[in-house]
Amino acid sequence: KAREVLDHGFVRVIDYMGDDAAICQAARVSYGKGTKSVQNDEGLIRYLMRHWHSTPFEMCEVKLHVKLPVFVARQWIRHRTANVNEYSARYSILDREFYIPRAEDLAAQSVINNQGRGETLTGEEAERVLRYLKDDAGRAYDHYEEMISDEGQQGLARELARMNLPANIYTQWYWKVDLHNLFHFLRLRADSHAQYEIRVYADAICEMVKDWVPAAYGAFEDYRMGGANLSGRQL
Amino acid sequence: KAREVLDHGFVRVIDYMGDDAAICQAARVSYGKGTKSVQNDEGLIRYLMRHWHSTPFEMCEVKLHVKLPVFVARQWIRHRTANVNEYSARYSILDREFYIPRAEDLAAQSVINNQGRGETLTGEEAERVLRYLKDDAGRAYDHYEEMISDEGQQGLARELARMNLPANIYTQWYWKVDLHNLFHFLRLRADSHAQYEIRVYADAICEMVKDWVPAAYGAFEDYRMGGANLSGRQL
Amino acid sequence: KAREVLDHGFVRVIDYMGDDAAICQAARVSYGKGTKSVQNDEGLIRYLMRHWHSTPFEMCEVKLHVKLPVFVARQWIRHRTANVNEYSARYSILDREFYIPRAEDLAAQSVINNQGRGETLTGEEAERVLRYLKDDAGRAYDHYEEMISDEGQQGLARELARMNLPANIYTQWYWKVDLHNLFHFLRLRADSHAQYEIRVYADAICEMVKDWVPAAYGAFEDYRMGGANLSGRQL
Amino acid sequence: KAREVLDHGFVRVIDYMGDDAAICQAARVSYGKGTKSVQNDEGLIRYLMRHWHSTPFEMCEVKLHVKLPVFVARQWIRHRTANVNEYSARYSILDREFYIPRAEDLAAQSVINNQGRGETLTGEEAERVLRYLKDDAGRAYDHYEEMISDEGQQGLARELARMNLPANIYTQWYWKVDLHNLFHFLRLRADSHAQYEIRVYADAICEMVKDWVPAAYGAFEDYRMGGANLSGRQL
Ligand SMILES: Cc1cc2nc3c(=O)[nH]c(=O)nc-3n(C[C@H](O)[C@H](O)[C@H](O)COP(=O)(O)OP(=O)(O)OC[C@H]3O[C@@H](n4cnc5c(N)ncnc54)[C@H](O)[C@@H]3O)c2cc1C
Ligand SMILES: Cc1cc2nc3c(=O)[nH]c(=O)nc-3n(C[C@H](O)[C@H](O)[C@H](O)COP(=O)(O)OP(=O)(O)OC[C@H]3O[C@@H](n4cnc5c(N)ncnc54)[C@H](O)[C@@H]3O)c2cc1C
Ligand SMILES: Cc1cc2nc3c(=O)[nH]c(=O)nc-3n(C[C@H](O)[C@H](O)[C@H](O)COP(=O)(O)OP(=O)(O)OC[C@H]3O[C@@H](n4cnc5c(N)ncnc54)[C@H](O)[C@@H]3O)c2cc1C
Ligand SMILES: Cc1cc2nc3c(=O)[nH]c(=O)nc-3n(C[C@H](O)[C@H](O)[C@H](O)COP(=O)(O)OP(=O)(O)OC[C@H]3O[C@@H](n4cnc5c(N)ncnc54)[C@H](O)[C@@H]3O)c2cc1C
Repeated sequence: KAREVLDHGFVRVIDYMGDDAAICQAARVSYGKGTKSVQNDEGLIRYLMRHWHSTPFEMCEVKLHVKLPVFVARQWIRHRTANVNEYSARYSILDREFYIPRAEDLAAQSVINNQGRGETLTGEEAERVLRYLKDDAGRAYDHYEEMISDEGQQGLARELARMNLPANIYTQWYWKVDLHNLFHFLRLRADSHAQYEIRVYADAICEMVKDWVPAAYGAFEDYRMGGANLSGRQL
Repeated sequence: KAREVLDHGFVRVIDYMGDDAAICQAARVSYGKGTKSVQNDEGLIRYLMRHWHSTPFEMCEVKLHVKLPVFVARQWIRHRTANVNEYSARYSILDREFYIPRAEDLAAQSVINNQGRGETLTGEEAERVLRYLKDDAGRAYDHYEEMISDEGQQGLARELARMNLPANIYTQWYWKVDLHNLFHFLRLRADSHAQYEIRVYADAICEMVKDWVPAAYGAFEDYRMGGANLSGRQL
Repeated sequence: KAREVLDHGFVRVIDYMGDDAAICQAARVSYGKGTKSVQNDEGLIRYLMRHWHSTPFEMCEVKLHVKLPVFVARQWIRHRTANVNEYSARYSILDREFYIPRAEDLAAQSVINNQGRGETLTGEEAERVLRYLKDDAGRAYDHYEEMISDEGQQGLARELARMNLPANIYTQWYWKVDLHNLFHFLRLRADSHAQYEIRVYADAICEMVKDWVPAAYGAFEDYRMGGANLSGRQL
Repeated sequence: KAREVLDHGFVRVIDYMGDDAAICQAARVSYGKGTKSVQNDEGLIRYLMRHWHSTPFEMCEVKLHVKLPVFVARQWIRHRTANVNEYSARYSILDREFYIPRAEDLAAQSVINNQGRGETLTGEEAERVLRYLKDDAGRAYDHYEEMISDEGQQGLARELARMNLPANIYTQWYWKVDLHNLFHFLRLRADSHAQYEIRVYADAICEMVKDWVPAAYGAFEDYRMGGANLSGRQL
């Protein structure tokens, strides 16, 4: 049921409320009687998406369990219209699990886009990067364990020791969001401007949403992901 | 399944997500392993409520269908942390249904509380009030119908005609909210400072929530509804 | 300073925070050093708008005092990302002020758009509509006053008496919102699909925003108001 | 103007809107005429705070510039009712600045509170912890610099290289919030259950708020910080 993402991550649906029919049911509250026959569900959903009638999409809700590197979590959490419960590194001990990119994902800084990637690193440079990432993470975790250990010493508070750990360590959370705001998240994070490591999570969620609400997902794909925004000047 | 409220209103559960166990499940994400045995569910829920750890309660969600007078809707909609789809009086024709208080709910203005009620009206005064409310609503609705009629005339736009209708006309909506914000709503609206006509809706929802998440509701009742807030000076 | 809207309404700026420069200042926090020379302010603002980088626009805030008919207030309040304090009809007595459309705004129901207007009403029909609106409002208000009067009687609670009043009575509020969400409001409410009576408020606010943040307003106008959204299929 | 916090952090007010008088002005909108003489400002503010009438406090807004360690930022950002622009580690190069606790802040894990601190570490243990924190941060940063360097190599993308950096590195952001939600933040983060390193930021902000809105801060301190919540059972 869980979809694996990156080297140790995953996305898993815990629960959901509503479906394509629930979107239409809510939209039809607005229209009252006398409009029974308006449109079939898919047509209505496409109409709502096209005209930015977003509130009926808020009537669906999904709760995910996600395991993800901290630097991805830092981007993700910026989406405020969600409910979150994260693993506490004050309360509990983090696992020794770090995101180490695959060779083909070790990208150079883009020379044209300050916020992007260019070619894949190769040869010695790639090797050195991987060695640094692995060694530094390993050492940081060894020291984390040593610092919190209470054998023969007091043991540093976990909330302090964890600050030694790098941003590629994995965390996890429950994340619950409505479908409108999930689409907004997906539009921004399944987009080519988003960092690859969050994009793969967004892509995995896209697959799940496609199964869950196929008509809504189709409309989203057509009007938001595949669409274009022209300015008045361009028109 | 629907609970009747006031003379023509109701509250009905359309769907929900999560339960007492889901609150605990989310809270336990934070605590990780090594804390399995902490507490039973009810103890944990009471702990969360007592310490204002509100995010696990956001992991439950409920969707209601509500029929309510417009003046109640105007108070209710001020709660922004919810998702709403309301019947459109631009699109559709409103029904001839008005809230007319029962004799015992016809209260005088409080003489001590500017925002409250005092004794029940009696005798001629009560009769006159009821007559005004009924007659004015009836006449306004007759004119509403006449204005929008397209028989022998163009027919006024519905979005304009509805402005003739008084605030005790009924509307309806789908209203979806998470449990933390529902509790916040209930604390404010099942409270004695709230207007009677919204309080009866809050009371009906309290009954539903008690059935749905008994442990969470119990903790809410004890710490929020029944509790007291003392200031530093008072202590 | 206040702009008059409709027959008794207005919009007035109470206070604001930030300006075009504040948007850029916030956006440049992200870019750190080494990007000083990127772009001039207007170019940067257009870039942010084009790419839906909305958070820098949230760094500006405006507080308005608005007087508006209740049926307009009911549409307006649906925008949840704002802060509101409204005149209390439980606490205070409403004024005898009703929105009565000008002759040229008395529109017939559209025959092609269920949620819209068609031609202007004329002749006797128009006269009858105006008479109904004026008379019903006047009578409702007379009865309101009579019911709450405490001369020679107890006097009905204001919170109950107000339910006799029609939706074209005026209310007022303070409304505070950030610029990003204000643009969202304006996109939806200065749009031709919005009801005329809220559109004139949105138009008045547009003028104010143009004075306040000319570069941001220009970008908004070009990319949001004047722009178009093409679907993937259309492309 | 900026208040220094921890070893390299600070909090600085960029802008604000409103003051104690603005809270009262908004609250008085609700009360309309006939209630001019109700109360002086401080009395009104204390009344609003006591009765959880929170919306008038939303009428004040403040914008801060904050420099803070990443692990503190991760707790802070969980407060969703704010506007944020953070320094981008995809776009820009992070500075070599790490939070290293003072000797007296090197606390052991609490033995009674899973999410808290106990005694201060001493002797060799304290020294070793400081050595680890400093050395690991230094080495991680050296490798970060090496990896992104484009001298004689392609240079790893900054968005990837930064994942090698530990959670005590400093970041910065603009953070804008209304006074009601700021009080909510302060109640949770100036509290003894909050981690020391975020508490010192909350404390610094408390001082600023006290200067800015003394009456509101006084009420907050008395009813929220100094107050107590009793359950029904306790009563
Ligand atoms: C001592 C302490 C320990 C903590 N430990 C943990 C932990 O182990 N794990 C963990 O995950 N978190 C933990 N937290 C964080 C906590 O769960 C909250 O995320 C954080 O305190 C922000 O509080 P808030 O949600 O009330 O604030 P805000 O996000 O500012 O929200 C304020 C209010 O606005 C409403 N609101 C805002 N956004 C939404 C939304 N999207 N949906 C619904 N309502 C919304 C709600 O009514 C909310 O109460 C801890 C916090 C503290 C103070
Ligand atoms: C022409 C027109 C016709 C309309 N007809 C109807 C109708 O028939 N029936 C009807 O019910 N409404 C109708 N509406 C109202 C509409 O459904 C929206 O409620 C209103 O436009 C506010 O838009 P919003 O939700 O995007 O704005 P805001 O509430 O300001 O929200 C902005 C964004 O913030 C986020 N957000 C804010 N609050 C929440 C929250 N609590 N939960 C999740 N996300 C949140 C969402 O991403 C949202 O898109 C109509 C609106 C227009 C313009
Ligand atoms: C007895 C009583 C009398 C009242 N009298 C009046 C009156 O005279 N005039 C009047 O105008 N109102 C009045 N109200 C309404 C009151 O001001 C609130 O609007 C209403 O109670 C909703 O409360 P809330 O804002 O806490 O709820 P929600 O809107 O559900 O918000 C819950 C929490 O989420 C956060 N939040 C949600 N949306 C936003 C946002 N856009 N910006 C910042 N934070 C947000 C805040 O932390 C908020 O506390 C009255 C309410 C009651 C119960
Ligand atoms: C490619 C990319 C690059 C980025 N680079 C940076 C960067 O360099 N620096 C940086 O700081 N961020 C950066 N971000 C994050 C970005 O600024 C947003 O924080 C993030 O995308 C979440 O978007 P959102 O605010 O629309 O979503 P949500 O927080 O889910 O909000 C959705 C909508 O709800 C409403 N809303 C929700 N909460 C509030 C609130 N508290 N107040 C007012 N309205 C609210 C708004 O209308 C908002 O548009 C980047 C994002 C992307 C995709």
